[in-house]
Amino acid sequence: MNPKIEKLIKQFAKLPRVGGRAAQRIVLSLLQDKTGRTIALSASLADAATSIKPCPICGCLTEDHCEFCNDMSRDSGQLCIVRDLGDVWTLEKSGIFRGRYHVIGGLLSGVAGTTPEDLNISNLSSRIKDEKITEIIFALPNTVEGKTTQHYIMTVVGDGVMFSELASGVPLGGDLDYIDDGTLSIAFGERKKI
Amino acid sequence: MNPKIEKLIKQFAKLPRVGGRAAQRIVLSLLQDKTGRTIALSASLADAATSIKPCPICGCLTEDHCEFCNDMSRDSGQLCIVRDLGDVWTLEKSGIFRGRYHVIGGLLSGVAGTTPEDLNISNLSSRIKDEKITEIIFALPNTVEGKTTQHYIMTVVGDGVMFSELASGVPLGGDLDYIDDGTLSIAFGERKKI
Repeated sequence: MNPKIEKLIKQFAKLPRVGGRAAQRIVLSLLQDKTGRTIALSASLADAATSIKPCPICGCLTEDHCEFCNDMSRDSGQLCIVRDLGDVWTLEKSGIFRGRYHVIGGLLSGVAGTTPEDLNISNLSSRIKDEKITEIIFALPNTVEGKTTQHYIMTVVGDGVMFSELASGVPLGGDLDYIDDGTLSIAFGERKKI
Repeated sequence: MNPKIEKLIKQFAKLPRVGGRAAQRIVLSLLQDKTGRTIALSASLADAATSIKPCPICGCLTEDHCEFCNDMSRDSGQLCIVRDLGDVWTLEKSGIFRGRYHVIGGLLSGVAGTTPEDLNISNLSSRIKDEKITEIIFALPNTVEGKTTQHYIMTVVGDGVMFSELASGVPLGGDLDYIDDGTLSIAFGERKKI
């Protein structure tokens, strides 16, 4: 195989959710393209790589002015803590939250060796004071790592602010056959009177 | 969402085997990368897009000198006809074929509107004469379109060369439960005496 094609396939195969076979198909499609799509993608990558940086306040990827921190129409009293920018996009798509975000960039994990120093939480206390935040909403994964991280942040931040977390339970459209025992147990324990 | 990030996600989502969610994950991973991977990918794309072209003889993507047409260690008497370069890579990986290739770039299809003019077959007759080809091996998909295309090429090329096609049957490790009736019928009809 031509070394340039081989290099490109290897680079694509390292991307998340792209395996070796998919990388081959992608490179083939790009190299057979006659519409300038490949050069356009190359230019977009270079442009984004040089101009997009994490916001020093909330950790979202942004250009000079963060679209969330500088949006005065958003409720600055509520701060939603998420693992990564992908979660911000998911929440923004749903339109259910109109406060500010704080992207911590990972979860505490003994297995992966992630320590508090690896997380973007050092400016959290000053944000709460400066931005007069009254409620911190944890939207972290509902896993051991997520809960551990949540607990750690609550300890660090201390009192003076209300904490909340997303509800656990059976998802909409969820068939009980396919729900794990842990979720089922929580859903039972926190059942609502109707 | 930042317009540059949004543009990049849209460009990735248009690639084969990459959906919208995967495109988000890919872009997120590239923009959070601190190892220069994004700039490197951008450079490889630009480099390949400008230097890689289809070989005018066999249709494989290549730089100036086609690695297949210029490899004198390959048997020039056998010509394997494939749909696209991905099939060449599959055959090369298996190492079972050491002849020359001819990439036709598609299959005749009424549904997709692919006509003989869309296929890279105009120089096929001259190749057979110039390269003294004795056997044409069809390694096209075992579908109606593949067989139609094969039949068309045989008509165009005419006599004076031997034609062969890949054997049909039960794949290795294939459980009869999961084999379609058509394959089963062929495997029965062409059963081998043991």
